[in-house]
Amino acid sequence: MNESNEYRELRQRVLEANLLLARSGLVILTWGNVSEADRAADVFAIKPSGVPYDRMTADDIAVLSLETGEKVWGRLNPSSDTPTHLKLYQAWPDVNGVCHAHSTYATVWSQAARAIPCLGTTHADTFDGEIPVTRHLTAQEVDEAYEAATGDVIIEAFRSRDPSGTSAVLVRQHGPFTWGKNAVDSVEHMMILEQCARISHLQYEQGATSLHESLKKLDEPLRRKHYERKHGANATYGQRG
Amino acid sequence: MNESNEYRELRQRVLEANLLLARSGLVILTWGNVSEADRAADVFAIKPSGVPYDRMTADDIAVLSLETGEKVWGRLNPSSDTPTHLKLYQAWPDVNGVCHAHSTYATVWSQAARAIPCLGTTHADTFDGEIPVTRHLTAQEVDEAYEAATGDVIIEAFRSRDPSGTSAVLVRQHGPFTWGKNAVDSVEHMMILEQCARISHLQYEQGATSLHESLKKLDEPLRRKHYERKHGANATYGQRG
Amino acid sequence: MNESNEYRELRQRVLEANLLLARSGLVILTWGNVSEADRAADVFAIKPSGVPYDRMTADDIAVLSLETGEKVWGRLNPSSDTPTHLKLYQAWPDVNGVCHAHSTYATVWSQAARAIPCLGTTHADTFDGEIPVTRHLTAQEVDEAYEAATGDVIIEAFRSRDPSGTSAVLVRQHGPFTWGKNAVDSVEHMMILEQCARISHLQYEQGATSLHESLKKLDEPLRRKHYERKHGANATYGQRG
Amino acid sequence: MNESNEYRELRQRVLEANLLLARSGLVILTWGNVSEADRAADVFAIKPSGVPYDRMTADDIAVLSLETGEKVWGRLNPSSDTPTHLKLYQAWPDVNGVCHAHSTYATVWSQAARAIPCLGTTHADTFDGEIPVTRHLTAQEVDEAYEAATGDVIIEAFRSRDPSGTSAVLVRQHGPFTWGKNAVDSVEHMMILEQCARISHLQYEQGATSLHESLKKLDEPLRRKHYERKHGANATYGQRG
Repeated sequence: MNESNEYRELRQRVLEANLLLARSGLVILTWGNVSEADRAADVFAIKPSGVPYDRMTADDIAVLSLETGEKVWGRLNPSSDTPTHLKLYQAWPDVNGVCHAHSTYATVWSQAARAIPCLGTTHADTFDGEIPVTRHLTAQEVDEAYEAATGDVIIEAFRSRDPSGTSAVLVRQHGPFTWGKNAVDSVEHMMILEQCARISHLQYEQGATSLHESLKKLDEPLRRKHYERKHGANATYGQRG
Repeated sequence: MNESNEYRELRQRVLEANLLLARSGLVILTWGNVSEADRAADVFAIKPSGVPYDRMTADDIAVLSLETGEKVWGRLNPSSDTPTHLKLYQAWPDVNGVCHAHSTYATVWSQAARAIPCLGTTHADTFDGEIPVTRHLTAQEVDEAYEAATGDVIIEAFRSRDPSGTSAVLVRQHGPFTWGKNAVDSVEHMMILEQCARISHLQYEQGATSLHESLKKLDEPLRRKHYERKHGANATYGQRG
Repeated sequence: MNESNEYRELRQRVLEANLLLARSGLVILTWGNVSEADRAADVFAIKPSGVPYDRMTADDIAVLSLETGEKVWGRLNPSSDTPTHLKLYQAWPDVNGVCHAHSTYATVWSQAARAIPCLGTTHADTFDGEIPVTRHLTAQEVDEAYEAATGDVIIEAFRSRDPSGTSAVLVRQHGPFTWGKNAVDSVEHMMILEQCARISHLQYEQGATSLHESLKKLDEPLRRKHYERKHGANATYGQRG
Repeated sequence: MNESNEYRELRQRVLEANLLLARSGLVILTWGNVSEADRAADVFAIKPSGVPYDRMTADDIAVLSLETGEKVWGRLNPSSDTPTHLKLYQAWPDVNGVCHAHSTYATVWSQAARAIPCLGTTHADTFDGEIPVTRHLTAQEVDEAYEAATGDVIIEAFRSRDPSGTSAVLVRQHGPFTWGKNAVDSVEHMMILEQCARISHLQYEQGATSLHESLKKLDEPLRRKHYERKHGANATYGQRG
């Protein structure tokens, strides 16, 4: 079961997608995990649990059955979020990459249990509508098969939405999951989600400050002085002839 | 039409301006685009659509007619925002570089459809007054020739302003465009716009907190203890004789 | 007392933990300090006071008695916060690494004298409940043995809590201390504390903006235009066949 | 007047202090300037105007008389803020380094014309009390000798304060100046000022959110699940035996 070249390309792609996530600045320490499915081989490969990114190799990646979730290759335990990934692959045949992170702004919206509305074209370029929030997990769901139940409530949130159109979700009080046509694609969606979450958060702050538009503007003599120091016939800035 | 040295210097300058934008931290993935016009040759060169910055070369840059907008050199599709750039070059003969990005704070102001007021000398050093917001696009304008219409509403916003004095605009619900005497100049204006947008946003937040100036100051014994641990005759910090 | 190989491994580990803190972006200049205890040798090693991180070597690390706090190895003065570290090692036999920093968000909560509540799973993954704040120090405590008193009020805050479960505290009007099973572990807890402090701070901001959920969403024609420029049969973005 | 080795060490120190400012992340483009005085030689050296940091050499630094402000060495124009630096050196004999920047948070406080209160020990470690704001400049002062008048109002703000105790000021609607015993020292004070300005700004935000402490905490079953996945006898996270 551990012949070193089995699933080599899949494991290499999953390694690189996890390293892309680490480089993106979205995670610290060993946080976050990315997987990719190979439908023909009926398996998916995923990051191991608790291994530092700077020591991770393709031989640390775990490969599991898409049918049973059992490990079919690898010596390390897969990410503790593996049952969530498996649920998404089983429910959504067009999704072949899944990413999870605790990126700052997407996590803020998740913890606040607020869907991210589509407030601008940055969001509209990638996501076909608002980013939904999953429902509350019952104490029993948390207790019995927590990570699988997390997958179930994600799928529930997309009962009347196309997961290919809106490739991201906010798990309530937890954090974001994104997906795509492969592992790298799911990480790029996480990067875009975080940027949209940040812009929308800051725009909410602006909304909250709208009563303060009477802030004192720069008085005209000082404004003019600064502009004219650098521009026009009498500019003194820089190394002019 | 694709002789490799044609428009070489122009394409090289446009490549470098796009890489400067990527390095500036203002964009993620393939977001953003920069162009430069060569008025003598009656063309402008612009970033290709959807090509990663780390693989982009001068041979990927597209060159188009300033008159018709038709491609005159290159094998790749130009940026999807190309018709907006063209409109600005056609309307404003002194502008020879244009930049577009979804930089965080300038996008927040754009989405909020709020002009950025001149609140300090940082803004006044570069921009001759507030940064205006374009008007709302009608559903018909969005539907028919969206990118060209975006150029039209930018030009409209400058009917009674000099685009050389205020080299930036916020496209409503979208994001910023900046311009200058060449491609690099337009990117530098984007960097300055983002810094001004950020400072002004944070100052609005301070305005919103003005009722809270009664925040508890550090009590005097603790304040004095910390200052005197590091300064004066009885200081204990560091490697003193 | 200064034989160059004495306590060499302990000092090397403490050096590396301090450099990890510097690389983490949590401190500027010479701010912050990390220590590790060797219970068998009855000593702990700690960063010297006021030495820049880029010139620090294992020979600059000071080693002190866990019993008396007296220096047993090294030519430089230990960190001015050394008495606080000593108090924690003496009170908590299972703690063998301590870290102090003025990281931005954890310091904000400390200065505001607010415990960080557990608002999501990011926090719950590491800390067993809220991060407590120490009580106010009296003027006499500040005056007489300030750094030791800081250790005492930390221990007080954990009288009815297990320091192994919640490995962090906010010292009122000052900043955070974290701890762990060794020096690197305490630095990782500081990195996690800062991320939790940041997410919780931003979520408070969202709470403050909840009356503004009526913010104008992107109107449907523009939203659809942007999504369809990049997706589906009529997409124009990128280098499609 | 331009013998290449004259004032070499002074110019080299001023170059390095300006490069430290550029590396610190506090400035973009050519923004900011640092100077250092040599009291024995009765001169001070300062950054040239409008020269990019990555091409700046010690031969670009300008040297001016401390008495008259006339240039005594160098082929480039000194920073346009030079008259402000000169005023401070003339008024304060113990100050031998001056730094100016438009760093984000210190500029926000300057534009808001709010003194930065001492809210915690991070501030108290370096600055002996609040960071003051200069008075409003009259239109005549702006018009006649703007940069020198900026120096005058800084000195005015310290009439009843010791500039060696509080080595920073906020110029109203403009930005911060800091100083110290040499050029590098003034840059380090700018780095500390920015960190204090940021922490205080964020703490004001927290004050503004104090009515929202009723934010929903993580419910107990989910909180416990996450903590216990990673800690204790039944932990499943990582590569355990």
